[in-house]
Amino acid sequence: MPFSLTPKDSSFYPLFTASAQNLVAATEVLDEFIHDHARRRELAVQLRDLEHAADQTTHAIFRRLNTSFVTPFDREDIYNLASDLDDVMDFVEAAADLVILTGLGTLPAEMSQQVSLLQRCAQTTAEAMPRLKSLKDLSDYWIEVNRLENEADKLYRRLLSRLYSGEFDALEILKLKEVADQLEEAADAFEHVANVVETISVKES
Amino acid sequence: MPFSLTPKDSSFYPLFTASAQNLVAATEVLDEFIHDHARRRELAVQLRDLEHAADQTTHAIFRRLNTSFVTPFDREDIYNLASDLDDVMDFVEAAADLVILTGLGTLPAEMSQQVSLLQRCAQTTAEAMPRLKSLKDLSDYWIEVNRLENEADKLYRRLLSRLYSGEFDALEILKLKEVADQLEEAADAFEHVANVVETISVKES
Amino acid sequence: MPFSLTPKDSSFYPLFTASAQNLVAATEVLDEFIHDHARRRELAVQLRDLEHAADQTTHAIFRRLNTSFVTPFDREDIYNLASDLDDVMDFVEAAADLVILTGLGTLPAEMSQQVSLLQRCAQTTAEAMPRLKSLKDLSDYWIEVNRLENEADKLYRRLLSRLYSGEFDALEILKLKEVADQLEEAADAFEHVANVVETISVKES
Repeated sequence: MPFSLTPKDSSFYPLFTASAQNLVAATEVLDEFIHDHARRRELAVQLRDLEHAADQTTHAIFRRLNTSFVTPFDREDIYNLASDLDDVMDFVEAAADLVILTGLGTLPAEMSQQVSLLQRCAQTTAEAMPRLKSLKDLSDYWIEVNRLENEADKLYRRLLSRLYSGEFDALEILKLKEVADQLEEAADAFEHVANVVETISVKES
Repeated sequence: MPFSLTPKDSSFYPLFTASAQNLVAATEVLDEFIHDHARRRELAVQLRDLEHAADQTTHAIFRRLNTSFVTPFDREDIYNLASDLDDVMDFVEAAADLVILTGLGTLPAEMSQQVSLLQRCAQTTAEAMPRLKSLKDLSDYWIEVNRLENEADKLYRRLLSRLYSGEFDALEILKLKEVADQLEEAADAFEHVANVVETISVKES
Repeated sequence: MPFSLTPKDSSFYPLFTASAQNLVAATEVLDEFIHDHARRRELAVQLRDLEHAADQTTHAIFRRLNTSFVTPFDREDIYNLASDLDDVMDFVEAAADLVILTGLGTLPAEMSQQVSLLQRCAQTTAEAMPRLKSLKDLSDYWIEVNRLENEADKLYRRLLSRLYSGEFDALEILKLKEVADQLEEAADAFEHVANVVETISVKES
């Protein structure tokens, strides 16, 4: 793509950055949620609000996509990037909601480590989004997110190993797995975001 | 896409409509299945027959795709639309089969509400498919399916909340979740269909 | 695509073949793993090594994709083919790991039948990959993999039916399902590989 006939709509970039910053905020609230029993209901409401804000950013991107004649990347990639960022938020919000509706109390340490990894994924992603404009120095970002997702996989296995160690009964395992699976899917979704950014970089380079 | 050099093959449209009408029939049978214990085995056979019919429509679309020189939309979108419609049918059929093979009896009211939402998704989708030809008035359709899928999500959470309320033991929860997850995936698959239609509309507009 | 201006990079083909042959090796090790209790830890290590080898092949494909000016197929299809082959390996390796970390002993016969089907999928796929170059005689391959995946679906349902027959308690069902679900996902991932090959063939024909 050596040149373009019309100036490209640059207004997608701040929306992607806003979407990723929402995830930084949400994973911070989730971290508090995990540790602070007494405030769980209040923090779950905060997460629901952040999820609504994320939805609005996602739909702003889709609306712009529908009305822009020229887009900075392939329409499909913009669509996937926005959807995958939105997916992360959905999994983060669902994790907290499932803790509440299964009535879980103190959570295994491995689960709070899962959340720490998600926080690092969110920060790395939010720092990378403004570089989408120049498409420079993005490979460090997707390599780091892939590394974090690998760590998250290992942690998830370690958690499963503990869940089946005899410490928990079937009902507790079921409840804990509801939450652990959402956290694991959030890490996967961060990797999907990184994969789309890699795809965009490959196409445009 | 202001004009096309050759007449486009219009024979894809009736196949998409047939595929969606199959889903109207299947979700109606599933609704009967949920309420009428005595006829479950017979209705499950009907669902299997509808699933075979759906498979044949899907493969007719794929064959046409392989032999058409010009297609009304991008090949990939035709492929995705056919596959996603087929996915809905697979989840609907699986839900009924899992009720039978787990030996579940009366199902929670939330589950029959899940099926009602699927019926509305199917009707909305079947009404929209004939409008693919003109690509007019489709936004109402995908907005409505997105709304129904949101409702389905909330209902699914309400169902989980009930499953973990203490009313059910671990084995019952496992069985009910096998079914509930298929119904939830069917709702998601209807949303995927709507997303493909939105993508087609955006590209062609 | 009647002609190309530059000679296409043919060096993708041996990498796809290597990736599929890795899956032949892995499904063979998984078969031994299922039957030979005493060697499970040792065989799980072999599977982890095969998974690392697969990762390296996948990344070799991605690197080549980033540096090739002209590719034999659409970049996206190369990306998907490599990713989907990699997914199969991840599910195969995870299945073995989950047997170990849930502490399962003898596994139901249906599970060893699932693995036999995966072996046949791997062999069929490895035989087809060298034909990607000519794009000839590939339809037999994807038809056969679709058939095997259908068989795998039926087998999975038969396994679920047995798991819920009363023979197992909730904890055992949970453990067995962890493994069975990975095997089922591996079969699905083989079908995704076949779908990408079908897509490539359709586009290029």
